[in-house]
Amino acid sequence: MADNRAIGIFDSGLGGLTVLAAIKKKFPNENLIYFGDTARVPYGSKSRETVIRYSLEIQDFLVEQNVKMIVVACNTASSHALDEMRKKYDIPVLGVVEPGVMALTKQQQILEQKIEKAAVIATRSTIKSGSYDAALKKINPEVYLYSKACPLLVPLIEEGFTDRKATEMILREYLDEIIREDIHYIILGCTHYPLLKGMMQRLYPSITLIDSSVETATMMEGLLNVNGLKNESTNNGFIKLFVSDITDSLLDMEKLFFGGTIDSVEKVSLGW
Amino acid sequence: MADNRAIGIFDSGLGGLTVLAAIKKKFPNENLIYFGDTARVPYGSKSRETVIRYSLEIQDFLVEQNVKMIVVACNTASSHALDEMRKKYDIPVLGVVEPGVMALTKQQQILEQKIEKAAVIATRSTIKSGSYDAALKKINPEVYLYSKACPLLVPLIEEGFTDRKATEMILREYLDEIIREDIHYIILGCTHYPLLKGMMQRLYPSITLIDSSVETATMMEGLLNVNGLKNESTNNGFIKLFVSDITDSLLDMEKLFFGGTIDSVEKVSLGW
Repeated sequence: MADNRAIGIFDSGLGGLTVLAAIKKKFPNENLIYFGDTARVPYGSKSRETVIRYSLEIQDFLVEQNVKMIVVACNTASSHALDEMRKKYDIPVLGVVEPGVMALTKQQQILEQKIEKAAVIATRSTIKSGSYDAALKKINPEVYLYSKACPLLVPLIEEGFTDRKATEMILREYLDEIIREDIHYIILGCTHYPLLKGMMQRLYPSITLIDSSVETATMMEGLLNVNGLKNESTNNGFIKLFVSDITDSLLDMEKLFFGGTIDSVEKVSLGW
Repeated sequence: MADNRAIGIFDSGLGGLTVLAAIKKKFPNENLIYFGDTARVPYGSKSRETVIRYSLEIQDFLVEQNVKMIVVACNTASSHALDEMRKKYDIPVLGVVEPGVMALTKQQQILEQKIEKAAVIATRSTIKSGSYDAALKKINPEVYLYSKACPLLVPLIEEGFTDRKATEMILREYLDEIIREDIHYIILGCTHYPLLKGMMQRLYPSITLIDSSVETATMMEGLLNVNGLKNESTNNGFIKLFVSDITDSLLDMEKLFFGGTIDSVEKVSLGW
């Protein structure tokens, strides 16, 4: 059965375009609607209550756009708002936390070897939420998870400082303690972090980085199949971008995190 | 004539508490109401239109609190929203841009020497607005102003990285070009920047830093007098803090930017 309704994707800002890119790559024929809450970005330093309020408002908007599924491409929103969102409408809602954690389990199966400990790096709010611990407890309770908030990485990435010595020093300040704990798996718990993969691999060659954007796209495959939601068209799907503020850096960010073709960009006020 | 109504101060977040601190120091008997828009911070990366909308909402709130004067302790809001705010109500509205520029003129008078060029460092949005150029053109058109956006300084300061080597490197990347231009006066065009004064002075000992928070408090003296708004009470005034989100870092930020006694903290939703 074909379902050509769009998939809705949202993030606090434009970092979630890394997730959109992974989804587009895996499902080129699906229609994609992305909402970036650029008028209130970032969520990572805001309270749970506020993040839930914002997420439900965006969900309302995406439902009005008649989406068949929602991907919360924001770790902070995934950490706080999934339960409330799933209660509100009868549409599948997938976050980026579970896929990251599932990837660890997959790694274990591939290696046929137990992973004893892993780390997750993310914004302060995501770490504080304990969402990665909670997901791991359900899926793979034997892994000890080391959590580290890295609040400076997002601004450094947004400034394009991905090759600077200063960024390397800050990254070392955040990650050296993980390496000292003899941890070999790091989940990138923020949509921006894939842009620092190169530097991280250079600094710590023995580490395996788990990129939630790729894992999320992989997990969607099953969800689309199970729910009979796949678009069977062989045409290329559209990508529509909605934002709550047209900022000066919009185009730069779009290029930084996506780089592909976006069919339309529109500003919307969500009635706040 | 005594006027014991409070002075309203607002900022996108809590950085403006440096301005509140300077005002409190100069006018210990004035009652102060501070609003920090912590649910939508930062403004520095948002559009003019959005910054104006947010500022007018906050002005409405402060007017409801019966303030006698409003200080816009946010460079971004001062750059974009002053005209609209001054049109809306018959209450004096003072921003932080003019006082910073006035200080240059004062320096000239003290030194009895022409200042040929100066620099302003600020957020991307403040620089883009051209507000410092515009103010200088009115007040002191002969000074050539060199403008530099330094978007990483706010997150570095909020992370408490004010003594780190990485911060020094980033600061050098931003400021070396100003020094190469043989500029000796730098206006700190963001409420956070006074916290890096020590490092800046150490790196560039010959530079004179102009701290808008201090200059704003100085300029208020005249405004309160001229408008007959001074509180003649000899008692210590109250400080009430309102925020749009109670975040985890609220207390840390309060300590970082103020450190004094705040009488009450309350969360308000501005109807958005």
